[in-house]
Amino acid sequence: MKENLHIFYAPDAAENATVYLSDEEAAHCCKVLRLATGDNIAIADGRCTVYNAVITVCSKNTCAAQTTSIISDIYRRNYFNHVAIAPTKNIDRFEWFVEKAVEFGVDTITPLLCDHSERKILKTDRLEKIALSAFKQSGNAVVTTINPLTPFADVIKSVSDETKLIAHCEEGEKTFFSNAILPHSRSITLIGPEGDFSDKEISLALSSGFRPVSLGNTRLRTETAGVAVCAFLAALNN
Amino acid sequence: MKENLHIFYAPDAAENATVYLSDEEAAHCCKVLRLATGDNIAIADGRCTVYNAVITVCSKNTCAAQTTSIISDIYRRNYFNHVAIAPTKNIDRFEWFVEKAVEFGVDTITPLLCDHSERKILKTDRLEKIALSAFKQSGNAVVTTINPLTPFADVIKSVSDETKLIAHCEEGEKTFFSNAILPHSRSITLIGPEGDFSDKEISLALSSGFRPVSLGNTRLRTETAGVAVCAFLAALNN
Repeated sequence: MKENLHIFYAPDAAENATVYLSDEEAAHCCKVLRLATGDNIAIADGRCTVYNAVITVCSKNTCAAQTTSIISDIYRRNYFNHVAIAPTKNIDRFEWFVEKAVEFGVDTITPLLCDHSERKILKTDRLEKIALSAFKQSGNAVVTTINPLTPFADVIKSVSDETKLIAHCEEGEKTFFSNAILPHSRSITLIGPEGDFSDKEISLALSSGFRPVSLGNTRLRTETAGVAVCAFLAALNN
Repeated sequence: MKENLHIFYAPDAAENATVYLSDEEAAHCCKVLRLATGDNIAIADGRCTVYNAVITVCSKNTCAAQTTSIISDIYRRNYFNHVAIAPTKNIDRFEWFVEKAVEFGVDTITPLLCDHSERKILKTDRLEKIALSAFKQSGNAVVTTINPLTPFADVIKSVSDETKLIAHCEEGEKTFFSNAILPHSRSITLIGPEGDFSDKEISLALSSGFRPVSLGNTRLRTETAGVAVCAFLAALNN
């Protein structure tokens, strides 16, 4: 896809159709970027398809575009990466994680509520904005889903047949992350809070089929561990 | 090394010797962490050795410790990672890169002055503080060297027999980073500014033996590209 083509997000976009951008996207298009009627843009539906489009209306309140062809050379991930991670005490670090995880590629982020969580409340609207902006910047084909803050046990219950990994900091035999997962697979990786998972949480995960993994030889902060998972998977599936 | 052992940096540390911490490290030890005489700490010389030590003086102005044994299970990188990267316009993004690069493992960071650089002045003292703090947190054995802002051509001239890689965004055949480098090797990777390298800079690098590499299928911001190099090398050398 042309590096210089501005991407906008419209979940209801279709081929050869008129698409109306949301107020936020319209403001970004017409006010911030000062694009105008007749300009070419790209419109992503966030579900794997990106369209070439031409702006037909670009007013103070409305931005409409006519989609033409589907952009074929957009990258589509050949793996599914779900990161379930305890939000950091410092929200800036978690917001940074969300941006970088999306840049490297992540399908679902589930903020975890753990026994040792210092952060027990989390607003996701700002995180979704950050994820959407990173989605558009990074040229990913799929918008990252950000789930609400979910208790650890509920996440453990929710998993099915994907590769299940837990990156806890306790001693013990661990496989390096990239050696514990096959390319092109679906995975969920659990990352704990600053105080790590509790022994109870670790036992529950292990008894539920989660495999303990190492993310390397250095001590990574929580948000860095989350990014490591996304970077390692990007390399593994390149 | 015990997760809970506080690490302090003293470049002149030796075995079975009295070590005086710098004012900054002393303040962190005695005032911030409230450690006291008799407490066990770890002292890193930043050149690969970390010592067990016991605090002997912990006053308002002075902190001294007696080193005993060498801590053997400290991780020592089996590769040399030099990242030469153009600082971002937004300094927060570059400071974030420094912290995360150190967590994943980087030996030398050389801020690059490029044709398209928006940032032409860079203070490195704050970056060195961030690198030192991340060094202590991450349990690395070697302190990262942060060079002053250096013109692109000077960096190209300075390289010798390491693996030379350039991650430019221009079209063309590129090997994926992790396939362009052998484990346990010395490498330098060039990362350009937001506006990418100029054609002149790319030609100079290629004619000087730098190999163009891809950092993946998504578009990464400058600071994320820098972290990608450090994360991919950590995985490759794990």
